[in-house]
Amino acid sequence: MGRITKRYRVTKVRVPSAPAEGTLPLLRDGDDEVAVDVDTRADVVSVEEPLEIRVGGSPLTTTMRTPGNDIELVHGFLYSEGLITKKTDISTIRYCAGATGPDGRNTYNVVEVDFAPGVALPDAAARRAFTTTSACGVCGTTSIAQLMGKAHCAITPFTISVPTILSLPDALRAGQESFARTGGIHAAGLFTRSGEPLVIAEDVGRHNAADKVIGWALVNECLPLDDVVLALSSRASFELVQKAVMAGIGAMATVSAPSSLAIDTAREAGLILAGFVRPGRMNLYAGAERVLPGDLLR
Amino acid sequence: MGRITKRYRVTKVRVPSAPAEGTLPLLRDGDDEVAVDVDTRADVVSVEEPLEIRVGGSPLTTTMRTPGNDIELVHGFLYSEGLITKKTDISTIRYCAGATGPDGRNTYNVVEVDFAPGVALPDAAARRAFTTTSACGVCGTTSIAQLMGKAHCAITPFTISVPTILSLPDALRAGQESFARTGGIHAAGLFTRSGEPLVIAEDVGRHNAADKVIGWALVNECLPLDDVVLALSSRASFELVQKAVMAGIGAMATVSAPSSLAIDTAREAGLILAGFVRPGRMNLYAGAERVLPGDLLR
Repeated sequence: MGRITKRYRVTKVRVPSAPAEGTLPLLRDGDDEVAVDVDTRADVVSVEEPLEIRVGGSPLTTTMRTPGNDIELVHGFLYSEGLITKKTDISTIRYCAGATGPDGRNTYNVVEVDFAPGVALPDAAARRAFTTTSACGVCGTTSIAQLMGKAHCAITPFTISVPTILSLPDALRAGQESFARTGGIHAAGLFTRSGEPLVIAEDVGRHNAADKVIGWALVNECLPLDDVVLALSSRASFELVQKAVMAGIGAMATVSAPSSLAIDTAREAGLILAGFVRPGRMNLYAGAERVLPGDLLR
Repeated sequence: MGRITKRYRVTKVRVPSAPAEGTLPLLRDGDDEVAVDVDTRADVVSVEEPLEIRVGGSPLTTTMRTPGNDIELVHGFLYSEGLITKKTDISTIRYCAGATGPDGRNTYNVVEVDFAPGVALPDAAARRAFTTTSACGVCGTTSIAQLMGKAHCAITPFTISVPTILSLPDALRAGQESFARTGGIHAAGLFTRSGEPLVIAEDVGRHNAADKVIGWALVNECLPLDDVVLALSSRASFELVQKAVMAGIGAMATVSAPSSLAIDTAREAGLILAGFVRPGRMNLYAGAERVLPGDLLR
């Protein structure tokens, strides 16, 4: 399908611990100066796109997935959920012919399933499968458009320094009570643009950790979160960028990789998106011009 | 709440690359012998429990989360989903008083939300919020019981060797086309009990990767998956163990940590569960007696 990876313009930033004097450009950081190595070039990212599963003509669920092996994915999903018990419970399964994107081409993001005679969705699942009025094929563009339509507040752009972003994973880890003991729990944190922690939460689910800190901001009446960074111990998926955009958060820093749709969404919404934030290095996928001076981004 | 971590009996296995001769017990592995260091003791694991969110008396959704900051989690979830726009859209929010588990105590796993007058769920969300007949408070035990009731096939116990389990992460990585290029995609693979790959799939979502390989088995009529191991590049959550159990898969090996509910479910269903499978070491959380001889497990 050729849709498993996609190329993006990515700004790779390194802050060497002992740079040879005079070899790297210097960035002012408060009263200090920091030598940075900046390299902007194309890099490969894993694709994330919505897949809508329709049963008997009605949407059952939408999952954000990497295209490829979709027919197996739908079989496995229906089987794992207990909705089918054998292959022959499905009479036909195919990509929806009318599911076209903004460019008029089939998105291959809608799969239509018809069950064999006598096989039906359980009541509870059928009640969830409501008919939508949209005839448009789901795709990344429509997911972003829907999000922008329901976001609670606009993002107010701000600048943030390279050293502050690089400090966030350690600050997040320092605020984690359980990670050191279990090695297996995600964290989300809200930090000011100068790197001061506002709140840190842990959860086995990265989306729950994000909801906990955004909920904290709502309960404590700190919304919209101007000049705030959301730091995450995980990768950046569409779902997580979506949560940041809903809350008006203007920057996100994650320890691991972003997906294609996370980058597209961050760029559309005006969010700074840093990924692979590790000691002394990171990648900027969106909003690099609000982290680095323009002459380093050419 | 004291429910963020939980202690489990865990068997830690190391296979040193150059053990001092005669210091460690030897395991037969085909024609070879392997020196292993085995240490069974209590270890700390992150707790995963279901949280049911009810709005106006009807269940809206259930998320698998780590207990703690549940009120913030519910606020953040409703806000991120666009179901509320401000704190005062919620008139009351509290743990359900009648949500008791098998031991008669409150599970603190059901949160009841009442919206302020004039605030309502959007049609689509309301249609998903169907009333269940169960009065029982959700908890790990009920999640496991529901799963065992709908599993398609029983797990047939089998044995598997330490070197085979240790070989799986590398074999999984070798079968990943995209990881080397992006550094940010999960993989799931089905392997025979001697470590031969049957199928490997990649996806930005670990649950999708698992569904793709289980769907492959369904399409290719390989179910039930006797003598098969599911290897995952991720952590082990309840959701992933659930998928294995539904397909009758008897062993699961993951690169990172399991949650409490993943371990409880694996033990109840009779699944071998290995976590933190890294070069030369792993932790056995369930089914250790089908990986190691009894005299090494005392």
